[in-house]
Amino acid sequence: MSVSSISCEPVLIAGEWRAADAVGTFHALNPATGEQLPGEYPISSWTDCDAALDTAARAAVALADVPRDRIGGFLDRLADRLESRKQELVEQAHRESGLPASPRLSDVELPRTTNQLRQAAQAARDGSWALATIDTKNNIRSCFSAIGPVVVIGPNNFPFAFAGIAGGDFAAAIASGNPVIGKGHPLQPGTSRLLAQEALAAANEAGLPKGTVQLLYKVKRDVGLRLVSDHRVGASAFTGSRSAGLALKAAADGSGKPIYLELSSINPVVILPAALAERGDKIAQEFSASCMLGSGQFCTNPGFVVLMEGEGVRPFIDRVKAAFDSSTPGVMLSEGVAQSLAESVRILRSAGAKLVTAEGPAPGAGRHPSTLLEVTADQFLAASAQLQTEAFGAAALVVVARDAAQAEQVLDRLEGNLTGCIYSHSGTADETLYERLAPRLRRRVGRLLNDKMPTGVAVSPAMCHGGPYPATGHPGFTAVGIPASLRRFAALHCYDNVRHDRLPAALRNQNPNGSMWRLVDGTWTQADVSM
Amino acid sequence: MSVSSISCEPVLIAGEWRAADAVGTFHALNPATGEQLPGEYPISSWTDCDAALDTAARAAVALADVPRDRIGGFLDRLADRLESRKQELVEQAHRESGLPASPRLSDVELPRTTNQLRQAAQAARDGSWALATIDTKNNIRSCFSAIGPVVVIGPNNFPFAFAGIAGGDFAAAIASGNPVIGKGHPLQPGTSRLLAQEALAAANEAGLPKGTVQLLYKVKRDVGLRLVSDHRVGASAFTGSRSAGLALKAAADGSGKPIYLELSSINPVVILPAALAERGDKIAQEFSASCMLGSGQFCTNPGFVVLMEGEGVRPFIDRVKAAFDSSTPGVMLSEGVAQSLAESVRILRSAGAKLVTAEGPAPGAGRHPSTLLEVTADQFLAASAQLQTEAFGAAALVVVARDAAQAEQVLDRLEGNLTGCIYSHSGTADETLYERLAPRLRRRVGRLLNDKMPTGVAVSPAMCHGGPYPATGHPGFTAVGIPASLRRFAALHCYDNVRHDRLPAALRNQNPNGSMWRLVDGTWTQADVSM
Repeated sequence: MSVSSISCEPVLIAGEWRAADAVGTFHALNPATGEQLPGEYPISSWTDCDAALDTAARAAVALADVPRDRIGGFLDRLADRLESRKQELVEQAHRESGLPASPRLSDVELPRTTNQLRQAAQAARDGSWALATIDTKNNIRSCFSAIGPVVVIGPNNFPFAFAGIAGGDFAAAIASGNPVIGKGHPLQPGTSRLLAQEALAAANEAGLPKGTVQLLYKVKRDVGLRLVSDHRVGASAFTGSRSAGLALKAAADGSGKPIYLELSSINPVVILPAALAERGDKIAQEFSASCMLGSGQFCTNPGFVVLMEGEGVRPFIDRVKAAFDSSTPGVMLSEGVAQSLAESVRILRSAGAKLVTAEGPAPGAGRHPSTLLEVTADQFLAASAQLQTEAFGAAALVVVARDAAQAEQVLDRLEGNLTGCIYSHSGTADETLYERLAPRLRRRVGRLLNDKMPTGVAVSPAMCHGGPYPATGHPGFTAVGIPASLRRFAALHCYDNVRHDRLPAALRNQNPNGSMWRLVDGTWTQADVSM
Repeated sequence: MSVSSISCEPVLIAGEWRAADAVGTFHALNPATGEQLPGEYPISSWTDCDAALDTAARAAVALADVPRDRIGGFLDRLADRLESRKQELVEQAHRESGLPASPRLSDVELPRTTNQLRQAAQAARDGSWALATIDTKNNIRSCFSAIGPVVVIGPNNFPFAFAGIAGGDFAAAIASGNPVIGKGHPLQPGTSRLLAQEALAAANEAGLPKGTVQLLYKVKRDVGLRLVSDHRVGASAFTGSRSAGLALKAAADGSGKPIYLELSSINPVVILPAALAERGDKIAQEFSASCMLGSGQFCTNPGFVVLMEGEGVRPFIDRVKAAFDSSTPGVMLSEGVAQSLAESVRILRSAGAKLVTAEGPAPGAGRHPSTLLEVTADQFLAASAQLQTEAFGAAALVVVARDAAQAEQVLDRLEGNLTGCIYSHSGTADETLYERLAPRLRRRVGRLLNDKMPTGVAVSPAMCHGGPYPATGHPGFTAVGIPASLRRFAALHCYDNVRHDRLPAALRNQNPNGSMWRLVDGTWTQADVSM
């Protein structure tokens, strides 16, 4: 099945850039121009995956003996290296994604990425993420430990921050002590290559085991399913579309392999009447800016607005319409992404949503006008599945409920989402309504916001970038936020009556670094265990 | 499809004992006599499940507003009530399970059960289990919160401690704020009924929402699969056989519902040569006692022993053989369990295992002789799947490896297990071998023990009663040990910019009880947040 691999870019396997066992090749396109970009990249066969898995399994064993400082050093070094190569990275990612070089890629996303890497480095050194727990009376001790090789499949909408190599899942998987097989997004192979080059160099500098970082560019669907369900894998992380994610989940579940998903989300925003009356214009402005940010290509893009009939509704909708209509459609990540958005809008309209924004001339290939749609809650309740279709991009559906009771019904129909926002009067005028609606929204989302749009996802220890299915595969985990995101890639390891000098450093009486928090006999402490 | 339900026992749904919508009925048998016990119990239709789910969904909403003290009070009250009714409970469980009334049921298992309930009560009140995390700079706060109705499907081998009502999963699910739909084990319906009576009374005394505790006795397989995958369910917990557990997992996974499994485990025990030389007799005695305890009907029963060729091997095997041969086979939980053990022994023998213990006369219905089998590591490596068949009961397979290298290979072939033990010389004579073998065993088990048999599972905060697939469904969770077991039944809830008076008590500036541990700006503290 292999085609000649001589002409195409090598993959990173077992510490070396080597010829792929390719079943085909592909090129990146510049979404702004539609032009093919230089570089022919391989679609890897199972043979490449198999080789990567073998190496990763060995690397996982070797990593167990690597001091945590060294793993932290790798992550810090990688952050430094990405900053040193910033210009080239930004230019490449801009060419492949159409995202603005500045401020987006250069001033927001790359700093976010290096910040994540440095936070992960700190967490790896500190070790508190592992929730080390010591029961001195029974001499039973436990902590989270590396789960084994992690497959990280990155999305198209963050060339750096969520990338298979150097993104948040990568940082979390490495910090918890695991090797990573990263799969770059096929829209951005050149960016993936640069990130992996720096990761390999940093890993070599830190003296990490060969195969701690490996890169594949693309695999066919069946090979991907086999990859996440292979017995050598510890866990996988996927950020992307619901259909691809659920197929991977089915495969991984079937062989008992944890997979962490971050899939579609329409991120409901509820705006209560007194808030609309008090500052409807301001909220419309905030909403429009958040919805159109980055051409709406965020998983936390607010795509679903719940209003209750009243005098603030029309002015709000008009104001958003005006902002949307006067905006210039940006270049989307690919022609396919723009077409998919158009298709989602078609689905919403065919389910009864009315187009609010102007139906202007087609904005050109790879672009899509900012789109506002509207339905009554009656319509929504009659077709709630279709009307929750994610329209990935700058598009939103406003649902106008007759009253609070109907708004409750709307919220009760929502699928799992990453976020949910409620805007309310700055005083107490909306308080009764808030109390009715907030508990319902709470159950549907991972992150509940007040008076704030969801597009910012702070890398905070208290963040939950997760939520109920089908926004993710398990509501107990978060893809963003350290230390919690590290625990996705860990197994709970208990040591019962194990001799003291055989315990991992985290569980010995002496605190390994003086800063690690451990739960000793019910008390969280950074002190040594006194026996 | 319903049969008349008038003659059979009612089920507990929506706070009332009411006639089941039964598709059939069943009786319990006394495994010691084979006689049918009084009481005709219903096999519930989907209609019963549907009603229980509706009530549970409402109870879940109502429970969110119940003070944690009240939930703790319920669990404490239930523990008290079980103690008050101890004699009846023990007699009933003894009749239905064949397990000795004393010491097992009366002096070990019931105290363990009430201890778990009281620890869970304390955890519910204290709240530290929720890992409340506060980032004051970003005003982002998060904690684990109730996940929604929990279906608990109990096993046959612990009439109290792991029961669908009042067992460990029940206690954890309630303590984390969820209603429970318990499914009793069909071998022990009378015990389930008594437990549920006490739970209902305690719930009413504590003023918990109607439907916080519900009981079904038995459902058909397809109804069970539908139950754990229903949209109203938050999560499920199952303790039992691999085949039933994996079918439930497939169903739950398919609808994105977490399910926590505790399935089969052969619990490998590695005995190193210098330990055998030093104290082979003592270890043989410990092993025999552990393997035959409770007729071997424990998920942590040691069923797989790895030895390395040498002079200690034959005496060890002879000693265990003598202990096994001289034991009197106990009554097993049911005739089916005894037959299943006989079948597993047949599978092991057909895969090449040699019977070491005497092939005596059949020990009578519902009993099985303690059975020791032996293979070389060569044989094991040639048929490692069949030779890891769990023989649930007092049976074990000894694998004799040529040397340490071959022992490594054996360990590398192991499936996921709950526990793994290594016995080594009390000095350092086995240290080199330990260092070679322990990391390999570590990767295959949830709990690693030294010089200690695995059958005791302390209810310790540091316990992991879990492990890699297929011993469980996810290696990051534990079914025993508080607080960690509670987090299985929780979703991560983040509050971003939420007004202070709208936050749950756990996340407000004032520590809700002065004892709750919270991670505030990177420091674990019981103090209030000073802003």
